Amino acid sequence: MAVNLPPPDPASLLPVRGVELGVAVAGIRKPGRPDLMVMRLAPGCTLAGVFTRNRFCAAPVIVAKRHLRRGARALVVNTGNANAGTGDEGVKRALEVCRAVAQHLGCDPRQVLPFSTGVIMEPLPVERITAALPQALRDHSDWAAAAQAIMTTDTVPKAFSQKVRLSAGEATVTGIAKGAGMIRPDMATMLAFVCTDAKVAGKALDEMVREVADASFNCITVDGDTSTNDSFMLVATGQGPDASRREDRRRLAQCVVDVAQRLAQAIVRDGEGATKFVTVRVERGRTAAECRRVAYAIAHSPLVKTALFASDPNLGRILAAVGNAGVAGLDPGKVDLLIDAVRVVQAGARHAGYEEHEAIAAMSKPEFTLCVVLNRGTAAATIWTCDLSFDYVKINAEYRT
Amino acid sequence: MAVNLPPPDPASLLPVRGVELGVAVAGIRKPGRPDLMVMRLAPGCTLAGVFTRNRFCAAPVIVAKRHLRRGARALVVNTGNANAGTGDEGVKRALEVCRAVAQHLGCDPRQVLPFSTGVIMEPLPVERITAALPQALRDHSDWAAAAQAIMTTDTVPKAFSQKVRLSAGEATVTGIAKGAGMIRPDMATMLAFVCTDAKVAGKALDEMVREVADASFNCITVDGDTSTNDSFMLVATGQGPDASRREDRRRLAQCVVDVAQRLAQAIVRDGEGATKFVTVRVERGRTAAECRRVAYAIAHSPLVKTALFASDPNLGRILAAVGNAGVAGLDPGKVDLLIDAVRVVQAGARHAGYEEHEAIAAMSKPEFTLCVVLNRGTAAATIWTCDLSFDYVKINAEYRT
Repeated sequence: MAVNLPPPDPASLLPVRGVELGVAVAGIRKPGRPDLMVMRLAPGCTLAGVFTRNRFCAAPVIVAKRHLRRGARALVVNTGNANAGTGDEGVKRALEVCRAVAQHLGCDPRQVLPFSTGVIMEPLPVERITAALPQALRDHSDWAAAAQAIMTTDTVPKAFSQKVRLSAGEATVTGIAKGAGMIRPDMATMLAFVCTDAKVAGKALDEMVREVADASFNCITVDGDTSTNDSFMLVATGQGPDASRREDRRRLAQCVVDVAQRLAQAIVRDGEGATKFVTVRVERGRTAAECRRVAYAIAHSPLVKTALFASDPNLGRILAAVGNAGVAGLDPGKVDLLIDAVRVVQAGARHAGYEEHEAIAAMSKPEFTLCVVLNRGTAAATIWTCDLSFDYVKINAEYRT
Repeated sequence: MAVNLPPPDPASLLPVRGVELGVAVAGIRKPGRPDLMVMRLAPGCTLAGVFTRNRFCAAPVIVAKRHLRRGARALVVNTGNANAGTGDEGVKRALEVCRAVAQHLGCDPRQVLPFSTGVIMEPLPVERITAALPQALRDHSDWAAAAQAIMTTDTVPKAFSQKVRLSAGEATVTGIAKGAGMIRPDMATMLAFVCTDAKVAGKALDEMVREVADASFNCITVDGDTSTNDSFMLVATGQGPDASRREDRRRLAQCVVDVAQRLAQAIVRDGEGATKFVTVRVERGRTAAECRRVAYAIAHSPLVKTALFASDPNLGRILAAVGNAGVAGLDPGKVDLLIDAVRVVQAGARHAGYEEHEAIAAMSKPEFTLCVVLNRGTAAATIWTCDLSFDYVKINAEYRT
């Protein structure tokens, strides 16, 4: 029951020169569904990535970070098992998967980056993965199938494409992501892979991946929990137009941001149990950081989230969350609040012309914006979140059963 | 459906010399239920209080703080309306209630402290309160009735008594509290009033109220939301034994801590939708502050809370929360985890002898302890929390309907 998120139209997803996709059914956790995806990269690609800041980062994250500098030839992604909280044994198993892929491709195991998502603290079933690898490596799937193969509690595959004109010609950007719960990325998201055929040097790509993450995956939250496996990889195959000129880099980065924002928003639209997609905008703060703090305080409050679910303009809960955000010197008597165009709070109290039915009507839509105006500066921040419904509890209480 | 929380036995609740209680039905929000409580104090009482740190603190909190130094003669508490997010008009209305009480008692309005709890951002119906005041001031109720009259979404009144022997004789400590949601006190709780007949100087009582709050109300969380109205008042009527000697103060403080901890735990046991009462203990950290940070990260994670609800030993979610607590330099490879006596995680990975059915059995009980051992110091912290169930969503989605 994702919010305004149709499955991707395979025809809209553009192939990226230098990237080949293959999926297979490995039976890692549940039989009969594709749960293994290998992205084969032509020689000469540059890669950059950002990863979870959770101190319990998963074994594949440790290995992927280590292998990031080796001219990667493949990314191998499994769902059903996160290989997290598995200690040294987990790292060993992630490396075994890399070795198996490398053997098939005739490359160095350090040129293979592993990614896992799924249940935490279960041993990774390496044999099932290696048994299914030949199938995945023979396969030629499209981006839609790849997006499907990395899902966990996602109900809709997430994939977007966009073209951008650079001075040397047109470049393609296509990305996929998965994620629905344990979502409060911190410099990363659950799993997202965005590829372009543009030619970008490694250092420039490093800068770009951080800039893009900050404008997309670092602006969403479902439940405030940062996953152990968050990874966002940006791949430039270099088989298309060059993007080394500053203006081309800027254009390409904007195109990558567009794709990444749509992926990030798709994760929220498909948030566990989500019935509403809510943009939280905080304006006129002193710094962007304090605006983000206020936005996250609202987006993480279970009381606000249940009120969003109920289409209940419980303004007090929103203001209480603003007051809890830990912003020093914030004057509640100056705060305004709008729900879409409906002015509900002015100067910290109910707006004189407030009509509850208008606020209810705005909140009853599947998408709306909560805008908090702090009236103490010129900075602003926007994040995207969803509501907290019965189904969130149901999905998470029954996840492992 | 509170967890192991029977209603208080009125016979167990000891009167406190110098304190008289009266309740009335004012029809503030819903008709036919007691929603107004006045605590009349004999001359010579000392008072101390701690209040919410939410920057949107409610009008009664502003007024109560201001009146705290005036030799209070009465506390007036209404439920059904929090008088929060109501701006200057809210302060005016709170003062009107104080004036009406003062007129009846023949004291200065500044000797009356107002407290409100209930819906936020609705104007306080002052006329209904003043109309019911004569009834409340004539009434002589017991502590059980007073606890009943301050409830909102509470399902069980919360009241405890205890005696303590001081060198000059036996002192009584009796307290009441309300609260079930929007609970993550920060130097305070929803509403709690603890009275003793011991004689304690104002300055000593100030110190005591902070010490007690830190050991009780500041150790609980239901949903991580700090209310706009949190207040914890400690009253010493001075009509019983003197507690000015250091050893007597220490004994009295311990007795007040005991009562306050039982009240604080009662709030969690009656947490909105709670089916489990969970003690989160974090041991062998470097500082108590980092232990508390880890404990709250666990207690606030919606994924952990839904797993508690499901009696699902989803160890990964607990470790992910530990990893998210923002503790610098924490080595996940050293962390142990126990559910009651069941060792589930050792050195960051599943314990060799782990049997899931044992962990499920431990978590299926209505009360258990999650113990995280950080193995990097000698500090520890304990907090109390509850699970996140369907009913939490139901209660909060339907609160205003």
